[in-house]
Amino acid sequence: MLRVLFSRAELYGVAKEIGKQGARRSVWIVIDVLRATTSMVAAFEAGCAAIRPAVGIAEARRLRKGSRAGGRILAGERDGKAIRGFDLGNSPRELTPERVAGRDIVLTTSNGTRTIRAITDAGAGEVWVASFANAAAVSRRAADLIKERRNGCVNLVCSGRDARFCLEDAVCAGLIIGELRGKGVDLTDSALACWNLYDRHRVDLLGMLRESSWGKRLQEIGLGADLDFCARTGWSRIVPVYARGVIRQGK
Amino acid sequence: MLRVLFSRAELYGVAKEIGKQGARRSVWIVIDVLRATTSMVAAFEAGCAAIRPAVGIAEARRLRKGSRAGGRILAGERDGKAIRGFDLGNSPRELTPERVAGRDIVLTTSNGTRTIRAITDAGAGEVWVASFANAAAVSRRAADLIKERRNGCVNLVCSGRDARFCLEDAVCAGLIIGELRGKGVDLTDSALACWNLYDRHRVDLLGMLRESSWGKRLQEIGLGADLDFCARTGWSRIVPVYARGVIRQGK
Repeated sequence: MLRVLFSRAELYGVAKEIGKQGARRSVWIVIDVLRATTSMVAAFEAGCAAIRPAVGIAEARRLRKGSRAGGRILAGERDGKAIRGFDLGNSPRELTPERVAGRDIVLTTSNGTRTIRAITDAGAGEVWVASFANAAAVSRRAADLIKERRNGCVNLVCSGRDARFCLEDAVCAGLIIGELRGKGVDLTDSALACWNLYDRHRVDLLGMLRESSWGKRLQEIGLGADLDFCARTGWSRIVPVYARGVIRQGK
Repeated sequence: MLRVLFSRAELYGVAKEIGKQGARRSVWIVIDVLRATTSMVAAFEAGCAAIRPAVGIAEARRLRKGSRAGGRILAGERDGKAIRGFDLGNSPRELTPERVAGRDIVLTTSNGTRTIRAITDAGAGEVWVASFANAAAVSRRAADLIKERRNGCVNLVCSGRDARFCLEDAVCAGLIIGELRGKGVDLTDSALACWNLYDRHRVDLLGMLRESSWGKRLQEIGLGADLDFCARTGWSRIVPVYARGVIRQGK
């Protein structure tokens, strides 16, 4: 079964439906194209060691304090903008090898990091991080996993914006789903819709990002160049995995 | 502002966001293509006087008792099937003038009638009923209303299935939205996605219904002919309106 959740508002209902065992046996794939999950993939491509997602700003500062002085980088945004006193914002363009190679990052964002934490609160087992950058790699890994576990679920969780639907996350889910079609996976209506949406926008993903409500917001505050970065597909084979409070590069 | 809610699970969040005054000033358009809102339009086209939506089976029986003996028709379904002891199921094909002209109907369905009631619980003002049958008429009326009230919202509420996304309701929302595009209405991401989905499926709405999860369910239990009925667009100019517990034909 391949299911798409259009926002974290649906997490509670799905967790209730599949039960604790079902939640643990499922793979949960988090998508926040603009920009948290794109930034995470970019950070690992730049050689960062680990990312700790924090829900609040205070929690993020606490998580930095827990490390040796200067050890962890503090990054994040609120309403798209960098946070006062933080080392970095949430732009994937900032995450260069010079800045992050070998380092730990503490990241707090409006939606993506909250979604990751909400999934674990819902009792999830495996949590992966996906964006246009690594969608093909995520698809391949999900296909392998579905072959191994005949009765497992794949839940694609769109972060959305304030727990509401975001076009770009659904389109990215559609790209992942496209690779899984015809491999004996049952598609729910939401999965079918995402595939349709990807198919509609595949010829111009950057145009789709520019038309999306969050994309418009980022352009307004001068971060339009991030859209170019986030629209690029298939340039990473890394599938970051979240477990016990930390996101790592994965196998 | 033109917003689409993909299921009644989103009602609470939206009601909180726009506040009591916003909820009252908005128009709420309920969509349950398979089959509640299609049946409602069909019933008014067949000359029925009024429809009382009931949440539970017991409530429906009570609402019938409230009328003179034999006065109200009891109709509805659970999991697609007719309910024991009821006069009719939820098939729009059953709602012929011979059966319903001049009569009151009490209707309880798994999703559509619950959504209507949930909207009023959320403090909504005006509630309209839409399906492929009357989508064009609903669009025209919504366009007029947006012109009149510059700061009003139109909220399209997809009933979905057990508070989850249903493809056919989103596609119907897209048909309504298509007629409103370019008329100075801001589209949210969900509205844009519905328009994309309608555009993808417009050439074969019946095929889309057959592919949808609820459409498959209806075919399995021998109600495939209802899909043909529900796929037909634009044959009714009636926009049913819900107020104070009763749906009427409207102006």
